[in-house]
Amino acid sequence: MPDQQQALLLVAHGSRRASSNEEVRRLATRLQQVGGKQFCCYACAFLELQAPNIPDGLIQLITKGVKSIVVVPYFLAAGRHVVEDIPAELARVQKQYPQIDIQLLPHLGAADGISSLILNIAQSA
Amino acid sequence: MPDQQQALLLVAHGSRRASSNEEVRRLATRLQQVGGKQFCCYACAFLELQAPNIPDGLIQLITKGVKSIVVVPYFLAAGRHVVEDIPAELARVQKQYPQIDIQLLPHLGAADGISSLILNIAQSA
Repeated sequence: MPDQQQALLLVAHGSRRASSNEEVRRLATRLQQVGGKQFCCYACAFLELQAPNIPDGLIQLITKGVKSIVVVPYFLAAGRHVVEDIPAELARVQKQYPQIDIQLLPHLGAADGISSLILNIAQSA
Repeated sequence: MPDQQQALLLVAHGSRRASSNEEVRRLATRLQQVGGKQFCCYACAFLELQAPNIPDGLIQLITKGVKSIVVVPYFLAAGRHVVEDIPAELARVQKQYPQIDIQLLPHLGAADGISSLILNIAQSA
C-alpha cells in the first residue's frame, strides 16, 4: 500500500541549458504518471545552477505536509556530488526538521537495470 | 538473430576519478553478460580525460573485423556533448572508414525506461 505521506524527490545536477533542466522537470512529471499513488508527491530539485535547490525542494514538500521523503540522485557516476555534496545538503535540512524521515537512495548509475535499459536502446538500431 | 559482426560501443564522458571510469568499464562487462550474443563485441570509450577516446574505441572494434557499430551515449542530458561533440567524433571516423556502418543511438536519458528504473530504486526505500 502506498504511503500517502511519502514523497519522491529526484535530484539532478542542474545545467546552464534551460532545455536540460526542462528534461528533468518532464521526467518528474513522467514519474508521477508512471508511479501514480506509489508516492503522494513527485518533485525535482537541482544541486546547482537551477531552482529549486535541494533544501528548497525538500522544504516545499515538508510544507505540503509530507512526513517522509526518498531522494534519488539523477546521476550516473558516484562522484563528489553523489558521495559528498548531496548527502551534505540533505543533512542540513534533516537537522532543521528532525521529525521528517529523509532517506537518500542509490544514484541512478548504481541501478542493476541500467544494463537492460542500454541494451533496449541498442536493440532499436 | 544477432548480427555477428555488429558491436555495441558505450560512450561515457570520462572522469578524473579512476573509480568513475572503472564503473563504466564494469558496466561494459555487465552489458556483455546481459546482452550475450546480441552483439559480437561490447566496449566502452570516453569523450574526455580517459582512454580509449572515441576514435580509438571505434578503430579497435573495426580492427577486430566488426562491420557495424551501434554507439550509445551514456549521458543523461542532451547537452553539447551529446548534440555536438559525440556526433563530430563519429563523423571523423566514419569519413576514414566509409565501409563501416556507424550508428549513433539516443542517449540514455532519452530512454522511456528511465522512469521505471527510478521508481524501482525508490521502491527499495
